Formats: sequence, structure tokens, C-alpha cells
Amino acid sequence: MLMRMSKLFLRTLREDPADAEVASHRLLVRAGYIRRAAPGIYSWLPLGLKVLAKVEAVVREEMDAIGAQEVHFPALLPREPYEATGRWTEYGPSLFRLADRKEADYLLAPTHEEMFTLLVKDLYSSYKDLPLALYQIQTKYRDEARPRAGLIRGREFIMKDAYSFDIDEAGLAASYDAQRGAYERIFTRLGLDYVIVSAMSGAMGGSRSEEFLFPCEIGEDTFVRSPGGYAANVEAVHTPSPEPVEASLIAGLPAAEVADTPDTPTIESLVEVANATRPKPDGGAWTGADTLKNVVVTLVSPTGVRSLLVIGLPGDRQVDAKRLEAAVFPAEVEPAGEADLAAHPELVAGYIGPGVLGPNGAPRDDTDGARGAVRYLLDPRVVDGTSWITGANEAGKHVFGLVAGRDFTADGVIDVAEVREGDPAPDGSGPLELARGIEIGHIFALGQKFAKALDLKVLDSGGKAVTVTMGSYGIGVSRVLAAIAENTCDDKGLSWPVGVAPAHVHVLATGKDEAVFTTAQGLADELVAAGIEVLYDDRVKVSAGVKFADSELLGLPFALVVGRGLADGVVEVRTRATGEREELAPEVAVARLRDLLASASA
Amino acid sequence: MLMRMSKLFLRTLREDPADAEVASHRLLVRAGYIRRAAPGIYSWLPLGLKVLAKVEAVVREEMDAIGAQEVHFPALLPREPYEATGRWTEYGPSLFRLADRKEADYLLAPTHEEMFTLLVKDLYSSYKDLPLALYQIQTKYRDEARPRAGLIRGREFIMKDAYSFDIDEAGLAASYDAQRGAYERIFTRLGLDYVIVSAMSGAMGGSRSEEFLFPCEIGEDTFVRSPGGYAANVEAVHTPSPEPVEASLIAGLPAAEVADTPDTPTIESLVEVANATRPKPDGGAWTGADTLKNVVVTLVSPTGVRSLLVIGLPGDRQVDAKRLEAAVFPAEVEPAGEADLAAHPELVAGYIGPGVLGPNGAPRDDTDGARGAVRYLLDPRVVDGTSWITGANEAGKHVFGLVAGRDFTADGVIDVAEVREGDPAPDGSGPLELARGIEIGHIFALGQKFAKALDLKVLDSGGKAVTVTMGSYGIGVSRVLAAIAENTCDDKGLSWPVGVAPAHVHVLATGKDEAVFTTAQGLADELVAAGIEVLYDDRVKVSAGVKFADSELLGLPFALVVGRGLADGVVEVRTRATGEREELAPEVAVARLRDLLASASA
Repeated sequence: MLMRMSKLFLRTLREDPADAEVASHRLLVRAGYIRRAAPGIYSWLPLGLKVLAKVEAVVREEMDAIGAQEVHFPALLPREPYEATGRWTEYGPSLFRLADRKEADYLLAPTHEEMFTLLVKDLYSSYKDLPLALYQIQTKYRDEARPRAGLIRGREFIMKDAYSFDIDEAGLAASYDAQRGAYERIFTRLGLDYVIVSAMSGAMGGSRSEEFLFPCEIGEDTFVRSPGGYAANVEAVHTPSPEPVEASLIAGLPAAEVADTPDTPTIESLVEVANATRPKPDGGAWTGADTLKNVVVTLVSPTGVRSLLVIGLPGDRQVDAKRLEAAVFPAEVEPAGEADLAAHPELVAGYIGPGVLGPNGAPRDDTDGARGAVRYLLDPRVVDGTSWITGANEAGKHVFGLVAGRDFTADGVIDVAEVREGDPAPDGSGPLELARGIEIGHIFALGQKFAKALDLKVLDSGGKAVTVTMGSYGIGVSRVLAAIAENTCDDKGLSWPVGVAPAHVHVLATGKDEAVFTTAQGLADELVAAGIEVLYDDRVKVSAGVKFADSELLGLPFALVVGRGLADGVVEVRTRATGEREELAPEVAVARLRDLLASASA
Repeated sequence: MLMRMSKLFLRTLREDPADAEVASHRLLVRAGYIRRAAPGIYSWLPLGLKVLAKVEAVVREEMDAIGAQEVHFPALLPREPYEATGRWTEYGPSLFRLADRKEADYLLAPTHEEMFTLLVKDLYSSYKDLPLALYQIQTKYRDEARPRAGLIRGREFIMKDAYSFDIDEAGLAASYDAQRGAYERIFTRLGLDYVIVSAMSGAMGGSRSEEFLFPCEIGEDTFVRSPGGYAANVEAVHTPSPEPVEASLIAGLPAAEVADTPDTPTIESLVEVANATRPKPDGGAWTGADTLKNVVVTLVSPTGVRSLLVIGLPGDRQVDAKRLEAAVFPAEVEPAGEADLAAHPELVAGYIGPGVLGPNGAPRDDTDGARGAVRYLLDPRVVDGTSWITGANEAGKHVFGLVAGRDFTADGVIDVAEVREGDPAPDGSGPLELARGIEIGHIFALGQKFAKALDLKVLDSGGKAVTVTMGSYGIGVSRVLAAIAENTCDDKGLSWPVGVAPAHVHVLATGKDEAVFTTAQGLADELVAAGIEVLYDDRVKVSAGVKFADSELLGLPFALVVGRGLADGVVEVRTRATGEREELAPEVAVARLRDLLASASA
């Protein structure tokens, strides 16, 4: 393959696009790989499409290698199957919905569990047909509230989604492991570091799910890991509850007392006033951890119903927005608005306490929270017998020594407080370390959720109809491409691994000398004859400086510069990733590049 | 590549699907290549996807060979560019429209002229950048009123769309010819007969357009050709007008006379009564060609506005529905309904005449046809001075000797009468022959329509900004696959050309003998080692009869049967297309198949 820059549909940009915050996004646009068509929706230009095809090929090969069979479903799908599983509603505003000319409802599929389930139901009927693994590489749609970072969070994107079908849990475990292994090989081949973490299942349901994260500062996912090998998405971290205090001990605790704490709407101000006015009985100082903070949020159900929720948690912790979102799925979270709060005058901002919340408040009509006490959920740390400073539901007043279980109760537990560096791992494997990452793969042991909803059964060896057990396995192909770019780029531009580069060698003819162009063309032809993919910068009237800058921006693994040195019998080979440069005779350049490519691909 | 039937995600069907009228549709479903997901929307199963990939590869190679560069646009696009060119409205109900969570309007693109135009505008600015040809192979959407014939008229389908950009008409002509040549090579490689016919440009506009039709009884398009080489889609046939009669001759014609013609609401009954009551002056018999028939239809504009139209044409011709649709685009045609007619009591069914129509009728307010005389358009044959028997606008009465130009006029000409076998070709190249075909490609010399609407200009060599001249070139890739199936199938099943078959050789192990399976497996492995793609029917407990039937249904070019004959030292090679069978020793089977494949691919 020989591409000529003089003909290539490409314009590199010197300026960063205004909307690009992360390096891969900036550089993929500047280097002319992709172009924004609408928010979160991108066009692929020739070089980008070549990289995409190579990433897809790696994914396809590894899927085929574990016996998964490729199929291809439509993106435009009828409502009914998604209605049957509840996801037509559950997806809320993230689902692109439309009606056809006959007013029949359709959607643009964000994922295809329903369709795969129905297809297998349509074709297969016996345990002998299983196990089965199917996959597709296909365009998916999700109407993200906040598309960002270019290909990393798009609204139209390319995904490999695979599905396994087994007769039982043991079969699912084997299918799951096979996919997990293929994912490890895929990301290794793509040169992407990855961490496998326990994850929340979200819309998928199911018994077990793991994410493959590419560790990276700009990642949207936070994950934790411990020295002992625990790893989880922060959304999936399960905070252990302390042992509840024994009833006999609770009985001995002093009674709660309301105190004036003027101007203490924040935890900091409250701690300060508390230490100044009511010294801690054990002689130490009050801290935020002694206070019970009650945070009000609004939940919006997929059908648009709004309700308030108060979360009680130790005052030294914040509510983690993503943990909260994951915990209340499929509802969405919004800050409590004035209208929401107006219906609940008992909530005194800055001084909210358990006394008016949940079971402690006015009787509640569950069909409409606004008519009674607001639903109240507690952090797992707030176990029975723990004693707190908390709001007294009156401006300027707090209550001291309010004991959980004795003085108040809640509607349940919610584990959404921030996880901190150094918190203990839930499995006792040591203190947690926090890091960020980009989700590049997600695998789900779905179990029977979809098969049950859509009645996918096969006959077992005894002739009995049994529900099929499924798994689903996704890789964000276009996102993976961005992750590779993010992983390898530097301040000068992109820097592709050999396996996914749009071409292997960038041949640059610099200067005006005709001999330079003749030699460069000859070397380009030789490289192509050797099976090496070449991008040849054959532009005349373009300065060497521009060509070098473009070459670094485009990020092919190697460059072969034919320029001024040619008069002295040398050309230059540059390695993009390391910046190494090597002068050599033109006659040996092709062989040298072949060696470099061979060792880079190894 | 070795696929095993025992593992392949495939179930062949013995029964025809209820909704399938045409052979390719029936067989592609029965053979497990595709599966219906919704009306006009199909899923691709493993074998179908393999054929699709091969068809795409041929298209891609020939596009690359003429220097077209591959890109890939989103399917989900914002409204604005399509608004700018008028197509957001013009497409009417055929366009899938939707709104995102912010209520911004989007569409699922039926074709991408707007986006390509904007992308080139974004990147290029000089005549030196041109000519440029870009293409994509991409999923397209069209909300067809009547999806039919499986992949032949779908609502989600795969298309190769290419676009050319030139500085002037001469450049466009060269680009157009290059694409035309590539299309000829593509269809030749795919083994598809094709006819290139002049076509209507429809939504595209532009100066010249041609269709590639695969001649085929089940085709939706009718085309004509003459011995002298004229060929056109019937929609695009231009009927020559006779010379108008000279004014002096018109003056000598007798005056028109109204006559009683009771019970003559049809042309047949009118001709009968006319011959019985008012013999033709020249002594011959009146025929339908002497009558002027006035046909009422309702036009519905893309925005839903309804208006009546009357078409006057010789009574021996029908209005051709597809020619009418093409002529009134972007309006749609409906039969005139009762409500439409109620507003026009002057239209007396069966006796409508020019007297109340168009300029001859009551004064008309053009903004609402219902308030005045109905718009009236004439067939090109109805030139000034021609004399007609036609309706007198009163039940049971017709007028004789009504002369066009003297006694009535019209609002214009409309060329929508049926074209008949034997009609003269408009270019004088002889009588027309009619045939049907499937549109497999369509090329358009667009000219400047899109570039003007979206302001795509480049600087010419003199530094002046000039509007770019464009072409657009489509191949219905999924439809082409169906056309190939239609072209090669027989009553037993599909029969793929080597170049697009899902595999080359179907190895069948028939019987229960273990030696059969061992030998078959060995031969399959040998074939694969020789670079031949194999589908191996390794199913146990499946009868030879079922395996043969499946093999004929699936339609691989060659079958290698290992069965009963093995005991006598022979296996059988079958050629699907011809039904030929050949017994030979297992040792020479691979070499024989290699030869057969080589000559079939040549």
C-alpha cells in the first residue's frame, strides 16, 4: 500500500479544536483522522478509518479464535423486544427513539441482548446446540447527556458485542472465561495496559461483571486496588459495616440533647462551634467523622417521575456522584431543585436531621414521596448504636448524641460515600489505592434475565425445557482506538503501535532537489514491494519543517527522511516512539526498516 | 478457512417464509443467510455476512483502483445541512427523523451528499486539491412505504456511495466516466449482467444520471431499449411531440359539437357509441386514440398539502404510475379521494373535459387549487391543432372535434403516459423493447446543486472563488447481493459465483462409516492447506438426503461428497451451477477442485 500525501484527503491543523479537552481527541482531529459531525458523533477520514479497520481485525481474529461466530444485526430495531425486557423504559433519555411512517416505535440500539436472544430462540432448540458464542462489530447509539473526549464518550460509536449461550452456570463460567481470555489477548496485542476490576452490572443485571480499564488520568472511571489483589470500579466497592453496638451498651449512652449552634450550615463550621461550646466527653476534639451529614438529592425515574432522597453519611465523607448514579440506576440523579424542596418545608437547609426523615418523619404515602416524609437511606457505617452530632431541623440548632437505632432509623442502607485512598479493601487485602481509567471492555455473566424475559429455552438431555444461561461481552472499538492514541501520544502528536498504524513507514522527501524525490519514490516502491505499508510525503513546495511536524503529528511508527543528506549518500530513519534517529545509506534503508518493523511487531 | 456444520450457527428451513415473494428472498432466508428483524430490516447470519464481506471487497478494490479514497460518515446526522439543501422536507415520509434528548432534530441518512460537501468545504480550498473522489460503504436508512423482496427494497441497507469534486464540467465528465468504468468492472466481476440506462435524477437534481439495471423479471424498474442503442428507465423516456398543426389548417377544421353519448363513462363504451352514432368523417372507425382522456389524481406535497391534478392524454394510453411519480417528485401521488373531489363538483366522473380545467375553467387562486379550476397538464401528443372526442362535463355527453389550441389550452405538458413495446425511440433509433430490471447502481452528474446550497467554493488558478462541481455514485451493496442470488439460484437453492461464495467447497461426509468422516476431515484439511475455503458437513446422525438438500440450498460452487463410494475408492465432486458430477479417487480430489476453482474464477 502506497499513499501519497499530495493526493491523500487530509489537512492537518495547527490549532487545537476548541471543544477538545483530552490529548487523543485533540490530536485525532488535528491529524485529520476524525472530524466532528455533531456532538458525540464523528466522521472517519481515510487515516482514521485505516486504524479502525486494524483494531477491528485484531478483535475479530481473537473472537474467531475462541469459536465465536460473527453476525450483524440492524441498528434500527423495533420497540417490542426491548419493551419485553423493560429496557425500552429503563434506558430513559439515553435511548434514541423514533417512529416510522406508520407510527410504529423504533430505537437505535445501544446494545443487542434482546435481538441475540430472540435469534437463538428462533434457530436453536436443544442442549446439543450449546454452547454457542456469537458476536458482531457494529454501530451503536446512546444519547449521552454529556458526550465528551471525542471517541471516548460518543453518541454513535463502534462496539464489538458478543453473547454466549449455555445450558447451565458451569457452561456460562467457561464461556465467560473464554471471553475474558480473548479480551486479555486483544488488549495485549493492541499494546494497551489494562486492569480487570469488579463492576456494577447496571442495565444488564446478572450475577457477575468485570470491566477492563485502561489506567489513564483522563479516564472517567475511578477504580481501586489493594496490595492483596482486590480491584474494583469505585462504583462496585462494597463498604463493610462495622459490627452493630450491643443493645446493653446502647442503653448506657447519654440521652440526645439539642443545642444552639448558630451559623453552622457546613460541617466545618459545625465542628468548630461544637469544639468551642461542647467539648467532646473523651477529651479529644470533635471532627467531621462525628457528625451525620444529610444530603438531599432528586431522583428522576426513567418515566420522568421525580422524588427526593436524603442520604445520611459521616460528615467527613462526600457522596460520590458516580457511586450514587450506579446505586440508583435506572433512576437518574439531579441536584434537588427549589420546586422539589418547596414541597418539603421540614427540610431546613444546613440543619437537616433524621427527626423528620423516613420512618422518623410524618407518615408517608409511598406512591408520592412529596406527601410525607422524604425517603432516608444511611451509609453502611451508620450502624445501630453509633452516636452522632446532626441537624435538629431548625436553623442554628444541632442535636448531640443522637444514637442510630435508639433515636432514629432509616428506610435502608445506601453505599455511595466516596471511597478514599487508604480505606481498607472489603476483602481485607490491605489499604486501597485509587486510580482512574477508561473502560475499554465490560463482560457480564448475565444469567437468565434476558432468556427469561424472552422465553429462550432449549430441551436438556432429559427432554425437559430449560432456560438458557447467557453472558454478554463488549469492547468499545472506537473508544479503544482513542485509548491507544491516548496511551502513546506525546506533545508532538500521535504515535501508533505497528499493529494498528495507518501505515508503517512515512517516507519524507524534503527539499527541492529532484534527486531527492526520485530516490524517495524508489525507496517507497521498494518498501511496498517488501510488503510494508507506506505513506509518502511527495508534496512539492512544502517545507521540510512542515513535513517533519506533520509526520510527528500523524504518528506512523517509522519515518524515512530523504533530504539534504542524500548528496552525502545518507538518508535518515526515525523511530516515532523513541525519537531515535539513524543515518544510513539509501541502499540499506529498506532492510533496516524491515528489521525495525519485525522487532516492533514481535 | 474451515467451517463445521456441526458448530455453524445455521438452521436451514424447509418451508418458504410467508412474506417472501421472490426467489432470492425466499432462499436467503431458508438457507440461513439473513433473517428478518422488522419490515425491510434484516440481520446477517454467518454465511450471509461472509458473502456481504466479499461483495464489499470487490466494490472497495475497484473504488480504490480509480483513486477514490474511503471514509466513513455517521448514519445519525443533524438536520441543518439537509435543511440547507431542502432535502429535510423533500424526502417527505421516506426520511427517518428523530429528536435527541435536547430536542435537537436528527435524521438517519438515506444518502450523504450534504455531509461530503461540508467535509470537503472544511478541508479544501484550492483548485489544486481537485479532482477528488471519496467513498464509503455504510448503512443507509429509507422509510420505504412498501419494503419488499427482502434485501431488494429494505429500510436499513448497505450502500457504497461515492462523491466526486471537480473544478468544472470537464472535470466532472472525467470523474463520472471513471466511476462508470469502475461500475462496469464491479458488476462484471460479480457476474451480474447489467444495462446502463438514462435515468431521472429525482431528489438528486443534476444534469445527467444513469442507472445500472440488472435485467430481471422481478425487478421494480421498467426500462426500454432500441435496436439503435437507446436505453432508458421508463421514467426517463421523453416522448417526442408531433409538429403542431399550422394555424391556417386549424382554421379550416369544423366547429366542435356536443353530442349525447349515454352510458359512456369508459373509453371503450365511448368508442362504441361514437362509431354507432357519429361515423368518423374519413370513413374509418373511431379508436381510443381519437379520444382525449382526462385522469384526475391527488398530489401530496412533502409538507402534506393536497392538490388535484388532471392529466389529459390520448384515450388508448394509461397513465404510468412510476413515470407520474418521477415527474411530480417531490410530491407523492394518491388516487383522488372523495373529499378531494367534493370540492370540485365541475368534475363529472367519466365525462370530464377540458372546458372546466386549467385556463379554460373558472379563475383559479394558485395558492389553493381547490378554489378555482383544477390544474390541467397535457400529454406531449396533444399538440395544437389536434382534434379530439372528449368529455363535455355533463353526464352522458361528449364533445366531438374539440381542437387543442383553438378550443382549449392547458397549464403545461406532462409526459407520463405509458411507454409501449414498439413505440419509437425518442432518438429515432428504432422501436422500443420493454424489460424489467433491478437497480443495482445509479450515477449522477450532480453539477453545483449541493455545492451552491452549502457554499463549497475553491480558488481557481486566477485566485477567484468558484463553486465546485460534483457527482454522486451509488451501489446498493446488500441489494447487489440479492441480485446475484436471484441471478444464479434455481429451484433447489442458491448457487454462488466463486468470487462471492461464503466458502468455495462444501465437503459432505455421508453415512455412518467412521472412515468416511476420517477421509472427509482429511480432505477438508488438505483443501484448507491449499488456500481453499471449506464448509465441512461433519454432522453425525444427519441423513445423506438432508445433507445433499442443504448443500444445494446453501449453494457453494463445489461439493465434495465422501460417502458410500469410498469403499470402492471414489469420492464425488459436484458443480452446483451445472449439476455436473464426477467420481474420482480421493487422492486427486483436491487437485481437481483446485483446477475447477481456478477456471471458475478466471
